[in-house]
Amino acid sequence: MRERVFLLLDAGHSEEPMARFVDIFLISLISLNVIAVIFESMPEVYAQYGPWFDAFEIFSVGVFTVEYVLRVWSAVESRNPRFKSSVKGRIRFMLSPLALIDLIVLLPFYLSSLIGVDLRMLRALRLLRAFRLTRYANSMNLLLQVLRDEGPVISAALFVLLMMITVAASITYLAEHKTQPEAFASIPHALWWAVVTMTTIGYGDVVPMTLIGRICASVIGIISVGMVALPAGILASGFNEALHQRRRKYERLVDDVLEDGVIDPDEHRELRQLQEELGLTQHEAASILKAGYRKLNQSTEICAECGKIVLITGPDSPEEGTPKRLSKFG
Amino acid sequence: MRERVFLLLDAGHSEEPMARFVDIFLISLISLNVIAVIFESMPEVYAQYGPWFDAFEIFSVGVFTVEYVLRVWSAVESRNPRFKSSVKGRIRFMLSPLALIDLIVLLPFYLSSLIGVDLRMLRALRLLRAFRLTRYANSMNLLLQVLRDEGPVISAALFVLLMMITVAASITYLAEHKTQPEAFASIPHALWWAVVTMTTIGYGDVVPMTLIGRICASVIGIISVGMVALPAGILASGFNEALHQRRRKYERLVDDVLEDGVIDPDEHRELRQLQEELGLTQHEAASILKAGYRKLNQSTEICAECGKIVLITGPDSPEEGTPKRLSKFG
Amino acid sequence: MRERVFLLLDAGHSEEPMARFVDIFLISLISLNVIAVIFESMPEVYAQYGPWFDAFEIFSVGVFTVEYVLRVWSAVESRNPRFKSSVKGRIRFMLSPLALIDLIVLLPFYLSSLIGVDLRMLRALRLLRAFRLTRYANSMNLLLQVLRDEGPVISAALFVLLMMITVAASITYLAEHKTQPEAFASIPHALWWAVVTMTTIGYGDVVPMTLIGRICASVIGIISVGMVALPAGILASGFNEALHQRRRKYERLVDDVLEDGVIDPDEHRELRQLQEELGLTQHEAASILKAGYRKLNQSTEICAECGKIVLITGPDSPEEGTPKRLSKFG
Amino acid sequence: MRERVFLLLDAGHSEEPMARFVDIFLISLISLNVIAVIFESMPEVYAQYGPWFDAFEIFSVGVFTVEYVLRVWSAVESRNPRFKSSVKGRIRFMLSPLALIDLIVLLPFYLSSLIGVDLRMLRALRLLRAFRLTRYANSMNLLLQVLRDEGPVISAALFVLLMMITVAASITYLAEHKTQPEAFASIPHALWWAVVTMTTIGYGDVVPMTLIGRICASVIGIISVGMVALPAGILASGFNEALHQRRRKYERLVDDVLEDGVIDPDEHRELRQLQEELGLTQHEAASILKAGYRKLNQSTEICAECGKIVLITGPDSPEEGTPKRLSKFG
Repeated sequence: MRERVFLLLDAGHSEEPMARFVDIFLISLISLNVIAVIFESMPEVYAQYGPWFDAFEIFSVGVFTVEYVLRVWSAVESRNPRFKSSVKGRIRFMLSPLALIDLIVLLPFYLSSLIGVDLRMLRALRLLRAFRLTRYANSMNLLLQVLRDEGPVISAALFVLLMMITVAASITYLAEHKTQPEAFASIPHALWWAVVTMTTIGYGDVVPMTLIGRICASVIGIISVGMVALPAGILASGFNEALHQRRRKYERLVDDVLEDGVIDPDEHRELRQLQEELGLTQHEAASILKAGYRKLNQSTEICAECGKIVLITGPDSPEEGTPKRLSKFG
Repeated sequence: MRERVFLLLDAGHSEEPMARFVDIFLISLISLNVIAVIFESMPEVYAQYGPWFDAFEIFSVGVFTVEYVLRVWSAVESRNPRFKSSVKGRIRFMLSPLALIDLIVLLPFYLSSLIGVDLRMLRALRLLRAFRLTRYANSMNLLLQVLRDEGPVISAALFVLLMMITVAASITYLAEHKTQPEAFASIPHALWWAVVTMTTIGYGDVVPMTLIGRICASVIGIISVGMVALPAGILASGFNEALHQRRRKYERLVDDVLEDGVIDPDEHRELRQLQEELGLTQHEAASILKAGYRKLNQSTEICAECGKIVLITGPDSPEEGTPKRLSKFG
Repeated sequence: MRERVFLLLDAGHSEEPMARFVDIFLISLISLNVIAVIFESMPEVYAQYGPWFDAFEIFSVGVFTVEYVLRVWSAVESRNPRFKSSVKGRIRFMLSPLALIDLIVLLPFYLSSLIGVDLRMLRALRLLRAFRLTRYANSMNLLLQVLRDEGPVISAALFVLLMMITVAASITYLAEHKTQPEAFASIPHALWWAVVTMTTIGYGDVVPMTLIGRICASVIGIISVGMVALPAGILASGFNEALHQRRRKYERLVDDVLEDGVIDPDEHRELRQLQEELGLTQHEAASILKAGYRKLNQSTEICAECGKIVLITGPDSPEEGTPKRLSKFG
Repeated sequence: MRERVFLLLDAGHSEEPMARFVDIFLISLISLNVIAVIFESMPEVYAQYGPWFDAFEIFSVGVFTVEYVLRVWSAVESRNPRFKSSVKGRIRFMLSPLALIDLIVLLPFYLSSLIGVDLRMLRALRLLRAFRLTRYANSMNLLLQVLRDEGPVISAALFVLLMMITVAASITYLAEHKTQPEAFASIPHALWWAVVTMTTIGYGDVVPMTLIGRICASVIGIISVGMVALPAGILASGFNEALHQRRRKYERLVDDVLEDGVIDPDEHRELRQLQEELGLTQHEAASILKAGYRKLNQSTEICAECGKIVLITGPDSPEEGTPKRLSKFG
């Protein structure tokens, strides 16, 4: 029973129809919550549909409370050994980032009901639920892993950026605070200008006017276009490498699976699972499989009608079974 | 007859003069249509040359209608087996994205003639014809293929971006809506600010003024420069890889073709065709070919006068014929 | 004694508690100085806490003066042979960029005390102390090394950028200076617009209004987005490559160390030291070590609880000692 | 005599002192001309120093006229066979892009002297001389080569960008031209807004105000950050690859040169020449050389004092001669 609940609530078990339904239901509810928060903030919309929004909020809180309790209860069924022990494991689970967000989002509602504080302000916190959607996206893990791997370098780039912003703000403050005593009243005021300039946003609400100020701003602007895009470039390179590793992992499984020349249903399921886990597209998976067959000197073709892989084993004995199994796969 | 029509209308048969003429005629007509839509929108220009624009529109609709009918009729001649069957194939062709655009662009004209609705508004739809120009650019296929391959990762990056925009808008809304009740009237209003800020456009029509609002905006700005350039970086990396694969494909053909040491006219045509198909520049093709010869220990030189490849087969017996054939190629 | 002082002041000796304390103390003091400079510039804050800021400044100058003197005195203990000789070596050390910054930051205080000039203006120079923080960040060295390696290419890109800015400014000046005689009064005025446009900051304080001016600005804008991001792209690629080399260096040490199949305490320390030196994250180091074991056909697992590597040497004789040592490491 | 003139005027012969002097003189004169054009445009500066600017212009025109005539006369000495023939070769040289710029820059002066037209306007053309500076920068060739190689892909990206700008302008025109009949008076007006938005410049002079206009602008903004950085990303990747090829070329020469284990003066000169030609930094060249020695099992060290390479051949017989020669090189 507890295991079944765990599997239903755990994301990514798309084979079982019930688990998939729970996934879709939760994704929809979270998305609707985000949309509700946005529209609720419009006075004219809230004036007209206020009660509906409140009712939807109560319903959502109910569902998420039940989900939260069930998740904590069934956490011990997780494959992660950290959550195995019945008390310490559950506390550890409750302190994991995503479970904490769940709690933070639920608390304002209960607190405001108990104490009677105005909860309108804290309602926007419900937007944080959106972060839970990351649980359902495989590519997100890749993004986070790259962020973690490239962490120290990106921190260094950010540190240099912050240092440059501070120095730029100070110099421009010295140059401008006599001409524009309001916009450049102090270094914190100049910091606002420096951030807006170095990120190339350039609102135009604060603009240097003295010659020295403009020369500083020009130098800063030119340096910043090189500096600011650096973290993005490093992330993108890291990303690309991680994508390659992911493909190589799939290639290795394809090679293992094709050692006997055929893909039996078990191996077929295994391939599909890894493909989902790694977040590979149909097209990528098919082209890796095709390359695997090519190594065995078996030519394949991508079917023009359905985009699936068809195995051509030779002119005399077309092995009908395999292509069909492959068609299912590709 | 039908096959000939198909080949004439199908892009990329640059050998036949008639097909090339049809290509250039259609490209010119589409380009002129785009220019016409732009100038027609200027009241003073339309006031003066209105009838000419209308006449050109009628002429264009006529040509594109004939072209559309001929394309549907000859679609069954396509190498793509999906379009082979005479009824289902043609319907499938009509539902393909580019054919649908063709229809959407033609319909407003006929509908407005029949029903008599004001077609001025829908005239701008003719701009969509510009997308048909992609049919004539080989590099475009590469771009689309990379977009498809890197799809899931780019979607993940976009999803994170949208989530960050929503959260940023909500926080800044909370911070600013008391100080600036008009610009930050609701979260949708704040969303406009958040998008303009995170894409680093920074019009400056809405600018945070409170301390918290500015701190939020600064954090968002700095994160966004890293986040926003991510999809572009991933695309660029994917692009570069795809370009490499393309060159390797050409290299393989060069190696095959050079196995006997000479390039006969047939092989020459084959090389040229692949070069066009892959969208390689003259320079790229020549340097790959040069490397192919180097492997055979035959030195070549790029002719200083004409930029073409000249084969140097040895000091005693200069094989005059080959360089000439190569000159044609290089 | 002198050697001990040198080791205490030299960054990166995190094993010794005293050296680590000195590091943390200096990092905190520098950071507090930066914060002080920023807040001091706010008139209302300085009016209230002026004496505190002055006292803190005197304390900081005292500490940094002592540190500077000790650093110069102990410089001869450096492993760098340039600083070995007792007089010339110390002068060389005093002329090194970071030591010069130290001096420049200290001088204004002493000069203003002696001569009695207003030192408020030069106080902002204390911000330069922030550059000393780079001494404590390993990733910074990587950044600087990449900047030096890609130097000539980035200079070329910057030179093209400056040339384009100048030409763009001149053309737009010719187009606009009659319509907007103030904003485009001369080419230097137009240069300010060109820089703001080409860096895509776009304040909006100067905007071209004539048709030719706008066409120029559009062409410049489109070219600039390609040109301006170039240095960042080159830096990012160079960075990525440097990161790879760094990882390969660690891999080589892991391979050396694992030749006998075990990691003894000495080798363990060596690995840790290189990891710190190269600025590798725990995660990177662990996965490289894991790959090293895999080559020896020894399977490892990353412990789910503590994220450390555990060695699995076989079902019959689990070599308990090694995993423990590894756990300490991973 | 003619050969000597050719070598003196041809860039990059830094060994000969006279040629180097001519290079530096011309670079300085071109740079001064650019600075003169900029300052001349300031009315207050020209009012005061007008005669000096005019004198400098006459001097510059004189020098550049002599240089142009000498260059055309000595062009036949070029290694490029296109310029060999005495009449046709010189005409071909005169039609080469850089020679044409030289002529265009000189003509206005002579035309205005002859006909008496106002030359103030055309004076700004002298800025084009800046392009001649590219002749002296080796990295520039690399930049141009990459631009040519990646040409078709970048054209495709630019074409997509232009198409998107047109479509975006049309849709926003339809949405906004009723609310803002002036700013969005026609599609060409909207094009200005679209360019400013898609390049993320965002002046803020034209901002969409209707809901549909803002939604369009948001979608366009988000797409554009991905699209617009694409050409830069492709260029940067191509650049990085070209840099690698350049290094590999130097590596090959190092391997050839080190086959006998020593670098004699001739080989030393050859290495230096290639290093200059490829635009490699001292540091890059030294590390490639170091790797070359490592392959021969000879350890080297980079001298701490002078940054040069020192060869360590063994403890018993230190081969004094080689390190010295290397020191000269590194």
